[in-house]
Amino acid sequence: MKKTNTISLGHGSGGLLTSRLIKTIILRYFKNPILKLLEDSAQIKLSSDDLAFTTDSYVIDPIFFPGGDIGMLAIYGTVNDLAMKGAIPRYLSFSVIIEEGFAIDKFERIIKSAAKAAGHAQVQVVCGDTKVVEKGKADSIFITTSGVGTIRLNVAKKRIKTSDVIIISGTIGDHGVAIMNERLNLGLRSGIKTDAAPLNLLTRLLFKYKNSIHFMRDPTRGGVVSVLNEMIDGSNRGIIIKEENVPIKKEVIGATDILGIDPLYVANEGKLICVVEKKAAGRILKTMKSHILGKDAAIIGEVIAEPGVWLKTRIGGIHPLLQLEAEGLPRIC
Amino acid sequence: MKKTNTISLGHGSGGLLTSRLIKTIILRYFKNPILKLLEDSAQIKLSSDDLAFTTDSYVIDPIFFPGGDIGMLAIYGTVNDLAMKGAIPRYLSFSVIIEEGFAIDKFERIIKSAAKAAGHAQVQVVCGDTKVVEKGKADSIFITTSGVGTIRLNVAKKRIKTSDVIIISGTIGDHGVAIMNERLNLGLRSGIKTDAAPLNLLTRLLFKYKNSIHFMRDPTRGGVVSVLNEMIDGSNRGIIIKEENVPIKKEVIGATDILGIDPLYVANEGKLICVVEKKAAGRILKTMKSHILGKDAAIIGEVIAEPGVWLKTRIGGIHPLLQLEAEGLPRIC
Repeated sequence: MKKTNTISLGHGSGGLLTSRLIKTIILRYFKNPILKLLEDSAQIKLSSDDLAFTTDSYVIDPIFFPGGDIGMLAIYGTVNDLAMKGAIPRYLSFSVIIEEGFAIDKFERIIKSAAKAAGHAQVQVVCGDTKVVEKGKADSIFITTSGVGTIRLNVAKKRIKTSDVIIISGTIGDHGVAIMNERLNLGLRSGIKTDAAPLNLLTRLLFKYKNSIHFMRDPTRGGVVSVLNEMIDGSNRGIIIKEENVPIKKEVIGATDILGIDPLYVANEGKLICVVEKKAAGRILKTMKSHILGKDAAIIGEVIAEPGVWLKTRIGGIHPLLQLEAEGLPRIC
Repeated sequence: MKKTNTISLGHGSGGLLTSRLIKTIILRYFKNPILKLLEDSAQIKLSSDDLAFTTDSYVIDPIFFPGGDIGMLAIYGTVNDLAMKGAIPRYLSFSVIIEEGFAIDKFERIIKSAAKAAGHAQVQVVCGDTKVVEKGKADSIFITTSGVGTIRLNVAKKRIKTSDVIIISGTIGDHGVAIMNERLNLGLRSGIKTDAAPLNLLTRLLFKYKNSIHFMRDPTRGGVVSVLNEMIDGSNRGIIIKEENVPIKKEVIGATDILGIDPLYVANEGKLICVVEKKAAGRILKTMKSHILGKDAAIIGEVIAEPGVWLKTRIGGIHPLLQLEAEGLPRIC
């Protein structure tokens, strides 16, 4: 029998080929007693009835990039959305749409990477789906993950108050620059890799600051500016950040200079921005800095009564940071 | 300003265009206080800690077909996967991958249809995502939904016993024939429509038969034969069904005859097969028949000690029903 090296339409048909793909690759890496049953729904237990539920589709191009791949990203991205809601991420779903002709060894590499990321993030992938479309009807592979977790922090936009402090957990722009360098063949020898990481490992250290943490969000698509604008959307408040306090790697400044883009608009996949009570900010910052994922954390600004998002530059000017119509680079996640 | 009639890459960028698409179309139809917050994760309450969690990606071609569309299917399909686990479906996620250039009015039609289906199925869409890929990198639109619900029936493959009875909730093959007729331009004036429907409205009537219902599954991709094979996979038992008892519309027989395919392998989207205790089968059948979604329900076979799935034909022959390598028609859901 001819060995199959690529994904065929039959792998998505629900017949024996699908069954074999699931048993030989997916169950080989995503090992847990719930997924193994392969029932229509996974049966899960959660200790609380206060839950977070989220979903994201990943269409990143290229699918392999410095420091990661679409499989890892699909796990960390959804884990992070749960973490930003103050939740402990517990269970994930994992659904793939594959283009006919996609190499099975690449598929295996992606599943292996996703399984490793799930282990690192301490979540279980308990259900999934596999669909295949004709060659030319999708671009290699798209992954959609959803996640559920138990909420431990009461974070909500409406808890944001004037004089609250804005903290970012680390350097900005790494993910976007890594992808642009790879996709556009810039050949920058910057060594910049994606910062994709499971932020729940950092946020769980913050559960003890229950009342002081008002809001959290990870600056992915649209970068820091989009998140800051969302934070004040619908309120009468504003945010001002100090340029000199924003952590950023020299190599990222170099790359964004060449590209003519503003790193404040560039996507991150392992950073969080939190809005905290002023009097607790110092302690929260210290706690964040104690963890590898928060070692470059910094206080970058504060919530003000004046509406709008504002940047105070190094030389003292104050400029509005407007949300863009559309981010410059599509398919960044 | 030029009015935009098609989806652009910017609609998936996380900037203002994305925000506008969500506010003007998605929130217009999916109306609930949880989704409206547009946070990274939805905050949901569930009354039980015994939950079902499932996901499916929908890549059906064509996206509009007799009796339905991809939006309705993405809701009912996931609702049904939860229902098959004996759960009350509660909350759904809804994530779209759209091809650049897709008509916004078609997008709106799909969202409207999905919202109507969610209302009918009594579930709330509480989180979602919107991604856009370049023209030619996806086929119109793909939708991935996930769902969570609270488990009320203890259904599991391991509860299936020899002499259990197999019940199907209605006629087979309607969905697959409707899609084939449309896709292949067969021009059959059969009037056959998809049977897509929310099976939770039927299964909730079965909660009172707690101990008597051992297993449920909806025969989607791969049809009745795939589901029957999955039911005995890993056990030493078998299943025999009687051809003359299988409910099927004359028009479906006509169409599958012309196509040269066996309706037992054709996909359904609003039917369930349940495996029940023999002594309760009559009462369960009667209950199912009392509901519009179960009006054509029938006892079609039983679980036997002899391994394999078998068909007893009208004239008395007994033939194995083997699972196919791959279903004949890709992208049926």
